[in-house]
Amino acid sequence: MFLQLIDVLGTIAFAISGVLVAMDKKLDPFGVLIIGFVTAIGGGTLRDLLIGNTPVVWMRDANYMIIIITSVFFGVLFFNKLKYLRKSLFLFDTIGIGLYTIVGIEKGMEAGLIPAICIVLGIITASFGGVIRDILCNEIPVIFRKEIYATACILGGVAYFVLDYIPFTKNYATVGGILVVLLIRILAVRYKISLPTIYKSN
Amino acid sequence: MFLQLIDVLGTIAFAISGVLVAMDKKLDPFGVLIIGFVTAIGGGTLRDLLIGNTPVVWMRDANYMIIIITSVFFGVLFFNKLKYLRKSLFLFDTIGIGLYTIVGIEKGMEAGLIPAICIVLGIITASFGGVIRDILCNEIPVIFRKEIYATACILGGVAYFVLDYIPFTKNYATVGGILVVLLIRILAVRYKISLPTIYKSN
Amino acid sequence: MFLQLIDVLGTIAFAISGVLVAMDKKLDPFGVLIIGFVTAIGGGTLRDLLIGNTPVVWMRDANYMIIIITSVFFGVLFFNKLKYLRKSLFLFDTIGIGLYTIVGIEKGMEAGLIPAICIVLGIITASFGGVIRDILCNEIPVIFRKEIYATACILGGVAYFVLDYIPFTKNYATVGGILVVLLIRILAVRYKISLPTIYKSN
Repeated sequence: MFLQLIDVLGTIAFAISGVLVAMDKKLDPFGVLIIGFVTAIGGGTLRDLLIGNTPVVWMRDANYMIIIITSVFFGVLFFNKLKYLRKSLFLFDTIGIGLYTIVGIEKGMEAGLIPAICIVLGIITASFGGVIRDILCNEIPVIFRKEIYATACILGGVAYFVLDYIPFTKNYATVGGILVVLLIRILAVRYKISLPTIYKSN
Repeated sequence: MFLQLIDVLGTIAFAISGVLVAMDKKLDPFGVLIIGFVTAIGGGTLRDLLIGNTPVVWMRDANYMIIIITSVFFGVLFFNKLKYLRKSLFLFDTIGIGLYTIVGIEKGMEAGLIPAICIVLGIITASFGGVIRDILCNEIPVIFRKEIYATACILGGVAYFVLDYIPFTKNYATVGGILVVLLIRILAVRYKISLPTIYKSN
Repeated sequence: MFLQLIDVLGTIAFAISGVLVAMDKKLDPFGVLIIGFVTAIGGGTLRDLLIGNTPVVWMRDANYMIIIITSVFFGVLFFNKLKYLRKSLFLFDTIGIGLYTIVGIEKGMEAGLIPAICIVLGIITASFGGVIRDILCNEIPVIFRKEIYATACILGGVAYFVLDYIPFTKNYATVGGILVVLLIRILAVRYKISLPTIYKSN
């Protein structure tokens, strides 16, 4: 119930982040819808393909499509207002990333994969929608350029497995993992923390 | 028999549209072949991956490869002449889109998916080859920028399901769906109809 | 044993070629890691998806991830030195391509595909990692622009099937196929052989 609510919020946030990028590129209405759709379902789709879980999840549950079309509709309608709300969008987006990371990890465990691979699957679930959005809009994916994105997913994944390993905290692994992703990402943006550069300054 | 003929025409048209884009980009002969190949089989490949129908269709039927290699060969040979024929190419391309939309829908129904998802699968089948062609050539996919592309696929898909639902017209669903896609796309290009803009004019 | 050694060398070379491209683009550390990872596993992943061999290979064998992370770490550390070593990197890269071509072909045969399709699968295995690296870095894939890349894979694949068909040379098919790929690629680069142009010179 709680997870489903955040799942819906995450799908909405990813769909709207697709709308924002697509409308900045002046795509036509269907282009905007497709980018919103792909941003919202891209990560889960690649995850399901990699583990052989087909037909992929949004094909088996029409709610994804209903939520995405509604989100894109309102995203386009309130585009000018949304610009002022990017801060709260960032929050939704971060919630989505937190949830999708843990969902990806749990799907990997169901498929019998080892923890390190499960965490990679979590990162793929959380980030690939944004990557494909940026590729389709002819940009270098934002995840490769800024913000501690993957770091947050990895540490959230590690927290998940640590909590899951200790019998006493086992039941809190899902929520704990999500919170660690949220916390690191919010702190990183709030305090402008970024990964140390690997390039010599001039 | 009739469908197989159009399928061949569609594959030829998509392969040649790949050749035209690749040669505009001055790719080497194998680059041109690869782009032609990917444009022709991209949509069906993604469709088969999403519904878990593997090995994907062109791997199980060598005719696709023979048709594509032949098409690319003649496309390169007659490149300068083809420029004057782009209008008839547009027709082939549109026939291909019409057919691939309905093929995608029927594959979705075989996989037990609901109509709305089947239509999405039809759009993917019809358009993804062109999308991946444009991504590989470092362009924003044309489908996101102009023409009523997806609209034609959606309305053709709706027509297909309406005809299929009525016992009296059931046998005409396939042909009817294809014709609706063709008609809308041709009318849209002929009369320069496009989707209403969602951007304020300056 | 011999094959496993070259497989490791190939994975290392592809991972490092990803690091070189990503660092030229000034990506952050995780961006570099992701590009290195994708370059190394991209070809095998698409191959496994197309033939329905899921979960894909690097998800079932953690050694791939360990080798890639180690390679990226040293690639970043010795980035400035590696620039002078690009010639030997080219050799590793070519070894990787030779091996991956034949691995792809053998996986295709296991899946019951015909030789021509197996060769296409070999090309995909050998080249898709580089293609996706270049797409993610917003470049037209190098394979479409220069060097006799696919030609070497095709001739190596043909050599493989010829050797495999003759009872006397059957046991040398794998090694023979790899050597043909290596030889053609090295000769092509050494003597600056390229495919004949299909464009009229001005």
